Amino acid sequence: MTQVDVRQRILADNAVAAATLRARFAAARTLVVNLISSPGSGKTTLLEATVRALGGRWRLGAIEGDIATDRDADRLRALGIPAHQILTGGSCHLDARQVGRALEEHDLGPLDVLFIENVGNLVCPTSYDLGEDFKIALLSVTEGEDKPFKYPSIFAKAAVTVVTKADLMPYVSFKLDEVRAQVTALRPGGTLLVTSATTGQGIAEWCALLEQRLAEKRGGGS
Amino acid sequence: MTQVDVRQRILADNAVAAATLRARFAAARTLVVNLISSPGSGKTTLLEATVRALGGRWRLGAIEGDIATDRDADRLRALGIPAHQILTGGSCHLDARQVGRALEEHDLGPLDVLFIENVGNLVCPTSYDLGEDFKIALLSVTEGEDKPFKYPSIFAKAAVTVVTKADLMPYVSFKLDEVRAQVTALRPGGTLLVTSATTGQGIAEWCALLEQRLAEKRGGGS
Repeated sequence: MTQVDVRQRILADNAVAAATLRARFAAARTLVVNLISSPGSGKTTLLEATVRALGGRWRLGAIEGDIATDRDADRLRALGIPAHQILTGGSCHLDARQVGRALEEHDLGPLDVLFIENVGNLVCPTSYDLGEDFKIALLSVTEGEDKPFKYPSIFAKAAVTVVTKADLMPYVSFKLDEVRAQVTALRPGGTLLVTSATTGQGIAEWCALLEQRLAEKRGGGS
Repeated sequence: MTQVDVRQRILADNAVAAATLRARFAAARTLVVNLISSPGSGKTTLLEATVRALGGRWRLGAIEGDIATDRDADRLRALGIPAHQILTGGSCHLDARQVGRALEEHDLGPLDVLFIENVGNLVCPTSYDLGEDFKIALLSVTEGEDKPFKYPSIFAKAAVTVVTKADLMPYVSFKLDEVRAQVTALRPGGTLLVTSATTGQGIAEWCALLEQRLAEKRGGGS
């Protein structure tokens, strides 16, 4: 069996596990969002801002993927939402079986929205369907405007690109127009949001997008 | 053959190719540095600052690893040093065979220092020896101080951790003491440098470190 065969088998197995997850999430009427970015782009910080904005109204939960440390789940539990940490032990992405096992072992209760925060990595998580409704790619303004074309797969697969840390724009060179052009080329019809968890910029738009997607999912399922 | 078997075989093949590269670099008396970080941490920017500081005195060259775009090699060639771009076509890291092939196909000439800028990824490149003298891990202050313990493998394997974008420290929460403590725990005796390519902070120390390592390599080989 070649390396390519092994990879194809792994992805095929993952697709089966992801289909099971997707059916489970449909039955539970839970909107599921898979967050993918570089380390330190602000995934957990965006979730903290989301919990602060929506936590009183919606039942939110999170699965956190990291190679080591429980820190991200701790941050979200501190805000009062159920969060489970998956430690991948060196693996560079979450897969659907890990998510399924985590949900079996740690009941997060009935949820309106489940956030799956992937391992910080713009490459490997892209190939693994986790049964989510959609992927988002986060890009902080400090990373530079050349990233969508350098990491095209994730920006093509993500329905939503969330630019983060917009409050730092005065201090760095970041050409938002270039990012917009690249994202539009890679994902025609995709959504680009510009946010700052520090100033609150864009958080209302992000929450409105979640609300709309949840309504669509529940409208479609009723 | 299981997934684990395949991975072990891939790493064993890589080790053989890396040993060949290391012998080649020893014969050429070239110091080789493998740069690893998240996307957008400032690898190419550090190299630009290094070329500006040392390019007149030393023969420098670079191999750039990216999934797509020749942009990074273009940036270095614009400064007058030979640079070759390896496009991995989706792969999340460079391997020793890719580097060997690149050197066969694109002669960079005799070099004092060869920089190998890996694909932007804090996880996967860590496992692949490229025949380098040492690895450096870059961490920008905007990524947050929790990263060494979240991505322990690279910070344990890197002889040098280079904190970048120190000029942005006034605008972000970044606890340098915590990074120092984590890096010391993961790599006792390792070196931590604090740099800014914008202000020039730490660039002289970085160049002095390269100079010392090159002298050691040539002293040891003479």
